[in-house]
Amino acid sequence: MKLDELGEFAFIDRIARGAPKDLGAHVLCGIGDDAAVVEAPHGVQLVTTDMLIEGVHFLRDVTTPRQLGAKAITVNLSDIAAMGGIPRDALVSIAVPPDTDVAELDALYEGMGEVARRHEVSLLGGDTTASPRDLCLNVVVLGHAAPEEVLYRSGARIGDRVLVTGTLGDARAGLEILLGRLDLPSTQADPLVRAHLEPTPYLAEARIAAISGVAHAAIDLSDGLSSDLGHVCRASSVAAVVNAGDLPISAAVRAAAERLAVDPVSLAVGGGEDYRLLLTAAPDGVEALRGRIQETSGCPLYDVGEIVAGQGVRLRRSDGTQEELRATGWDHFRAP
Amino acid sequence: MKLDELGEFAFIDRIARGAPKDLGAHVLCGIGDDAAVVEAPHGVQLVTTDMLIEGVHFLRDVTTPRQLGAKAITVNLSDIAAMGGIPRDALVSIAVPPDTDVAELDALYEGMGEVARRHEVSLLGGDTTASPRDLCLNVVVLGHAAPEEVLYRSGARIGDRVLVTGTLGDARAGLEILLGRLDLPSTQADPLVRAHLEPTPYLAEARIAAISGVAHAAIDLSDGLSSDLGHVCRASSVAAVVNAGDLPISAAVRAAAERLAVDPVSLAVGGGEDYRLLLTAAPDGVEALRGRIQETSGCPLYDVGEIVAGQGVRLRRSDGTQEELRATGWDHFRAP
Repeated sequence: MKLDELGEFAFIDRIARGAPKDLGAHVLCGIGDDAAVVEAPHGVQLVTTDMLIEGVHFLRDVTTPRQLGAKAITVNLSDIAAMGGIPRDALVSIAVPPDTDVAELDALYEGMGEVARRHEVSLLGGDTTASPRDLCLNVVVLGHAAPEEVLYRSGARIGDRVLVTGTLGDARAGLEILLGRLDLPSTQADPLVRAHLEPTPYLAEARIAAISGVAHAAIDLSDGLSSDLGHVCRASSVAAVVNAGDLPISAAVRAAAERLAVDPVSLAVGGGEDYRLLLTAAPDGVEALRGRIQETSGCPLYDVGEIVAGQGVRLRRSDGTQEELRATGWDHFRAP
Repeated sequence: MKLDELGEFAFIDRIARGAPKDLGAHVLCGIGDDAAVVEAPHGVQLVTTDMLIEGVHFLRDVTTPRQLGAKAITVNLSDIAAMGGIPRDALVSIAVPPDTDVAELDALYEGMGEVARRHEVSLLGGDTTASPRDLCLNVVVLGHAAPEEVLYRSGARIGDRVLVTGTLGDARAGLEILLGRLDLPSTQADPLVRAHLEPTPYLAEARIAAISGVAHAAIDLSDGLSSDLGHVCRASSVAAVVNAGDLPISAAVRAAAERLAVDPVSLAVGGGEDYRLLLTAAPDGVEALRGRIQETSGCPLYDVGEIVAGQGVRLRRSDGTQEELRATGWDHFRAP
């Protein structure tokens, strides 16, 4: 069987089935969350890695090298945030076509350094090599947390509210613009493109949630709400209901949806790469959590739904009807 | 300037110059050794990463997926060995062309798992993604050691003997065979090809050296003796003299050199990917160290030269003449 018939998530399941028997007793969480969790002498260590491939994750003609470097670090910091952790170190592997301009690489490393500095992460080095054709970047971030702080995907409880830290669908609309499939006035287009090219890691917000005792599960929205909330539900053996009317959708995404003749809700639940933090939290603690996050970082916390018994993710329309949300998120291996 | 004009090592220097100012106080060693070294609550943590790109580091038509998986883990374990450390965890990122056969990936993961199990390393997961054209693998290995055990490249002292754990040039001769540029009877060809495709990490030997107090510096021979010993000399502000007559060169490499009409010594000092461990050690401790390694693993320890004052690496011929050894090792970015 070819990989594009099997699909990415089935492949990950296949790896995961082969792997657990070989894990040491110090491994609290291997495959299946935003980062691996291993025992360390004081607390736990978090380790995450993300690979970015030219033509799959980015297009060099619409992304500046500085943006690419910054995003490569950010998506890994976002994984540490989604575990409630504090990042400390990063390693970078890069494979570069030999005719690449050195100035482009300098800018890429500047972009990485900028994000690393902002979050007090040390760039420890890594590996540099040639690539015959495509630029390939791999970043590893090491972080830590107290064991009781770690926010696993598997922690969601029935009755939890489902919270997100920002508007949804922006990055996907931005990608449509970058691919030349959507044209909007620049006042609307620019923030969407920036959402795609310059995501933010919600580290401070995640830490507040992690130490609050109120948050039970977390994931970062890399594949899209329907897909990522689905991961949380499967890992926690619960279901979720998302209220269409409560989804934070920017005016620019609404304009994009109109132009694309699609439902803005489908952009919001199916669009990937927003890198918002999704939390599930005890309902009676949400107000206090929102207040603490608001006063620390000014970041909003939108309540978009609830965790219920059952399985799968459902979308509740304003008329009360419910439909199942299939994981429309990104599968890297599926043939289109 | 294009990257292939600048060269790999100049590019690494360039990254290193930009990076140190951003390192936290916990970083004992960032860029510039086989692995990064960071303070951990008990001892130090070692982190290393290596990226393998199809067409640069391996050819899929002459490497089995199992061999590729095993080698991807091995080259990282070899970096941990070269710091005197104990590996514990590994993460794997893989970018796969969508039409790849799933059986090929299963075999690749089996190869990784086999080496990981043998050395009690836990595979924690990683990242899976599509690649438009070339298979790309990135492995990270985390290890640990006591701070005083770590074998830095910078530890070589004048008077030290230069020791290697196996014959040299075999992997390079094997590559010539794989590329169809060399033809030898299979009794000679097979071990050379295996040396290229199935290297071994010298973890047990490195640990004995690390705790012996006799070994002062270490590096693994990935680029070739002249290049890698050059790294040790630069990092330690010393020079080295290699005795041509003392280089361990297998009969198969001698046969390969004859067929290729090259000096076998040039294959031994310039050939990459042998992944032998190179140590520098106090001369009066070498015998005891050799004995301990011999009795534990049966591995030989060849004395190939000495550390002297000055800079650079020189080759001393049996007639006493010396010539400078240029770093003929592999530079990934240089135009041929």
